[in-house]
Amino acid sequence: MAETIILDCDPGHDDAVAIMLAHGNPNIDLAAVTTVAGNQTLDKVTRNALAVARVAGIVGVPFAAGADRPLIRNVETAPSIHGESGLDGPNLPEPAFTLDARHAVDLIIDTVMAHEPGTVTLVPTGALTNIALAVRKAPHIVERVKQVVLMGGGVHVGNWTPVAEFNIVIDPEAADIVFRAGWKVVMVGLDLTHQALATPEVEQRIAAIGTKPARFVGELLEYFKQTYANVAGFDSPPVHDPCAVAYVIDPTIVRAVQVPIVVELQGAHTTGMTVADFRAPAPATCPTWAAMELDRERFWALVVDAIERIGEPA
Amino acid sequence: MAETIILDCDPGHDDAVAIMLAHGNPNIDLAAVTTVAGNQTLDKVTRNALAVARVAGIVGVPFAAGADRPLIRNVETAPSIHGESGLDGPNLPEPAFTLDARHAVDLIIDTVMAHEPGTVTLVPTGALTNIALAVRKAPHIVERVKQVVLMGGGVHVGNWTPVAEFNIVIDPEAADIVFRAGWKVVMVGLDLTHQALATPEVEQRIAAIGTKPARFVGELLEYFKQTYANVAGFDSPPVHDPCAVAYVIDPTIVRAVQVPIVVELQGAHTTGMTVADFRAPAPATCPTWAAMELDRERFWALVVDAIERIGEPA
Amino acid sequence: MAETIILDCDPGHDDAVAIMLAHGNPNIDLAAVTTVAGNQTLDKVTRNALAVARVAGIVGVPFAAGADRPLIRNVETAPSIHGESGLDGPNLPEPAFTLDARHAVDLIIDTVMAHEPGTVTLVPTGALTNIALAVRKAPHIVERVKQVVLMGGGVHVGNWTPVAEFNIVIDPEAADIVFRAGWKVVMVGLDLTHQALATPEVEQRIAAIGTKPARFVGELLEYFKQTYANVAGFDSPPVHDPCAVAYVIDPTIVRAVQVPIVVELQGAHTTGMTVADFRAPAPATCPTWAAMELDRERFWALVVDAIERIGEPA
Amino acid sequence: MAETIILDCDPGHDDAVAIMLAHGNPNIDLAAVTTVAGNQTLDKVTRNALAVARVAGIVGVPFAAGADRPLIRNVETAPSIHGESGLDGPNLPEPAFTLDARHAVDLIIDTVMAHEPGTVTLVPTGALTNIALAVRKAPHIVERVKQVVLMGGGVHVGNWTPVAEFNIVIDPEAADIVFRAGWKVVMVGLDLTHQALATPEVEQRIAAIGTKPARFVGELLEYFKQTYANVAGFDSPPVHDPCAVAYVIDPTIVRAVQVPIVVELQGAHTTGMTVADFRAPAPATCPTWAAMELDRERFWALVVDAIERIGEPA
Repeated sequence: MAETIILDCDPGHDDAVAIMLAHGNPNIDLAAVTTVAGNQTLDKVTRNALAVARVAGIVGVPFAAGADRPLIRNVETAPSIHGESGLDGPNLPEPAFTLDARHAVDLIIDTVMAHEPGTVTLVPTGALTNIALAVRKAPHIVERVKQVVLMGGGVHVGNWTPVAEFNIVIDPEAADIVFRAGWKVVMVGLDLTHQALATPEVEQRIAAIGTKPARFVGELLEYFKQTYANVAGFDSPPVHDPCAVAYVIDPTIVRAVQVPIVVELQGAHTTGMTVADFRAPAPATCPTWAAMELDRERFWALVVDAIERIGEPA
Repeated sequence: MAETIILDCDPGHDDAVAIMLAHGNPNIDLAAVTTVAGNQTLDKVTRNALAVARVAGIVGVPFAAGADRPLIRNVETAPSIHGESGLDGPNLPEPAFTLDARHAVDLIIDTVMAHEPGTVTLVPTGALTNIALAVRKAPHIVERVKQVVLMGGGVHVGNWTPVAEFNIVIDPEAADIVFRAGWKVVMVGLDLTHQALATPEVEQRIAAIGTKPARFVGELLEYFKQTYANVAGFDSPPVHDPCAVAYVIDPTIVRAVQVPIVVELQGAHTTGMTVADFRAPAPATCPTWAAMELDRERFWALVVDAIERIGEPA
Repeated sequence: MAETIILDCDPGHDDAVAIMLAHGNPNIDLAAVTTVAGNQTLDKVTRNALAVARVAGIVGVPFAAGADRPLIRNVETAPSIHGESGLDGPNLPEPAFTLDARHAVDLIIDTVMAHEPGTVTLVPTGALTNIALAVRKAPHIVERVKQVVLMGGGVHVGNWTPVAEFNIVIDPEAADIVFRAGWKVVMVGLDLTHQALATPEVEQRIAAIGTKPARFVGELLEYFKQTYANVAGFDSPPVHDPCAVAYVIDPTIVRAVQVPIVVELQGAHTTGMTVADFRAPAPATCPTWAAMELDRERFWALVVDAIERIGEPA
Repeated sequence: MAETIILDCDPGHDDAVAIMLAHGNPNIDLAAVTTVAGNQTLDKVTRNALAVARVAGIVGVPFAAGADRPLIRNVETAPSIHGESGLDGPNLPEPAFTLDARHAVDLIIDTVMAHEPGTVTLVPTGALTNIALAVRKAPHIVERVKQVVLMGGGVHVGNWTPVAEFNIVIDPEAADIVFRAGWKVVMVGLDLTHQALATPEVEQRIAAIGTKPARFVGELLEYFKQTYANVAGFDSPPVHDPCAVAYVIDPTIVRAVQVPIVVELQGAHTTGMTVADFRAPAPATCPTWAAMELDRERFWALVVDAIERIGEPA
């Protein structure tokens, strides 16, 4: 039976691949897509989400725009990685449908409450602002959600600062709310996603599909490869966000460790760090998990399969 | 012409007096009352608001419940001041009507957007959680609101800590959002409200009114007097919250100074302090004001007048 | 009987007046003068101290140089107030004697230990770096010192930031050490020193003395008046540092209040604030006092008298 | 030619082994031993240092006591690891000589200045309070010291908190001073020292030596093994401090990586963390290094050899 997810994202090159994986994989029921400022401004990432929907042929799924800025901190975007549009590289088509009239926070709350308890997984792949606002506005969603599988953070590694990851550090207070809400949180962080490199071999497999969506992904990865090489010295770019979707599809693709995790809000050098305590085995009640190891082969097989299934949308 | 306000409160003894002043004064159009956790839990302060509505004969005004906790910090209430119910002292009647179905945040947003631009004043007399959530969910309300006249903070004085006031310190991140939103903020803080003492002479004037609402207020003040004497060594209790309403009714009752104010979020001893910079005259564009001096006589005349006008509700 | 003091300073215009007051007043036994980076670099303030010694005819008092920077924070000086030399205005004579071979920290420790217990008052009028280092190196001096009467901080006012004073904020960790050491601390802060204005009437009285030291002080005050007018909008400059010396000479010139005081080390807007808790009477064991009110007339009489007594040194 | 070191320590079981290694190894010229509060109070660790000196037959080396507490934070000791004496396990002999009359800070400064520039290595194996005070009192030692090889911190691991090591977290401000002083700092942290486990095989090799000093070390390791098992779940205890000495003896025993390191002073969860930035290759001017990998076999060979060389002191 398919897993119902709400994908809360800020496309973003890897967000786009995450949307495609969620749409193309038969084990995922994509109930809603919501957007949040992050990789670029809210307007841009929302337009990008709709563009990806058109490329992938997504219809009948509500898309809604959410927070245009973090809870407390000032807006920070990542044009050095994602370009001025937030999705530089391919040509972006005009949207095929319009946004849901609701705010993302209300779409998230309504969707969770419209499904059976314990059936909806939230998959945030951007800043956690929308999820945090939803928790504060409707705290009763916490016990109703199955789990939160988020791309963000990391245990032994940072990217935006020496020890903090972009999605967390741009809105650490939102992350703090999400990590402490009480629900199960699987942190798919940089420890894991830096294993999801789009190597030349991966690029070739995607190119071999030969469809428009595949070419679109190929152009995204080509741009992403350049910026990650320039900014961070990577040979191949880490395709973070679909890793969270992959975990929902098949948790055995990822080795996740149950470990207490808190978000640092006050450090001069560590704000936004996801602090994991590995000094002793976590208690059985510990709600937080850190993804540590990826089965690369099966991960990329899922991504390729999803793009193939998408085919050539009308 | 009457001033339209939304009263966002956590009754609370002085909140109750603020509700009565707003209801009884002909220059106020009370468009909505919303509640927020603070002096007591959300459930209690919401019940108290409805009880006050019944005592004061308020009908046709939507009441809605809001945030049950601060944005980031843990819940802190003030039973030492307001008792276990949050409104200890008088008997509290059963509500005469039910809550609006909307969340306080949505009632605030809808009410602001339903009125002409620049006509609605927000009057928060509790933690600023609801207002902050409204700003983040609907940032377009900021330029549409006339002003925010809040009870909270202080310049040279604290109560919950040496330099911080309760409403601010229990949710300093929310206060930070409100103070930095860009709209005009009039901080009616302890510098001002410690001048609004319910002296025996004030108590007698209220008692002389002789109505049930007046007796209700009298019993509130009697309880408040005891706790403020025990906890803080005051001879007469400072009746904070109606001062903010009084400012809306007649700004000449209060001397307010334009001064840059920021909220401290990181101090070991100063978190929740409203830091005002008096070192130089504020620039004309400075959106924040601090209330410094109260015309006590005219203030209490307004309160007494409002209770008299309320009369004996059905 | 004269009070023995160690003057730890960073001349600095008002430090220079403090040195003269300490030297000229018969109730002060000036046991040592030590210098610390602050108003200007250590080299400059040390040279300035020796220049003042020559102008004032000080002989037989050991002078030693101390810390060239704060404990933790980066160096910050105040050329906008004190000029490039730290003592701009008058011509500065060459020193008449050389520095003590010891580090200021050791001179402080040795001097305290060489006197009877409970007889030496420390009078820091700059950053508290030297005093803090002395406490950490020789904790036994704490119970042996009579009291610390420091110029710095303030209760309801700041100068270098909205709520912090220069001497404290440039080395808040040192201040924290001094305020928490356990000895009696009298904080002669801005609340008090902003009452010690060198008005034209004061300037005239000093000019009327007619000696070289008086002219030197007059030139200092003239420069100080200009920078305080330009930087802070004062009509007359506040002559901070001699207020601390005056308190030692005659505590009845100052109204000081016993009140718990802590130094904020972590605030984003409040670091270096001396947080006083006036919410309840201080316990009798509280070691910290805040100077609140100055007898201006008697203060300036002391300063004028000291300059007169100095006369025309050889 | 032997390397001249000053060993600044807080014995402590592993400090005792470090003293023995420094004394017994022919490539080390032990110029001074200084003590600092940490594993136990200053009095206790100082007594312990003298006891170890007697066991090891150290003569002619000045020992001095230093700071009895951290710069800013309150005292914290580690009796759960080192027992009430700080060196529980073996019987501790009475000292054979008395302390140097100087404070540790002055002994450090004097020793550095008495040797040729660039020849003295500081080896702190406790809190960095003494070293920090020396830097602030005598900043000219920084360019004269060859390097600081300290046991403390860690990159991907903590012990006293999830991400901070004991020596750093008990006086993070001192650590900040040392890491930012400008001299070369080699951080021999938990990444490295958790590889220096005293396995049963190691215990047997030491027992086989058969001398009194060897038995003393054996009893120390036996106690250490118990507390590390109880407190931290280790099968064999990590013998941290001699790793720093071993690096001085032969840097090829340790793989150290040049990487920018800063100490977090403000975090709610991360204070005392040594934050290393591995995102890009360190610039050639970067003065900080992190020890990552230990050649266990050669390390233990050095320790065993030193104990053998010590033989049976008179």
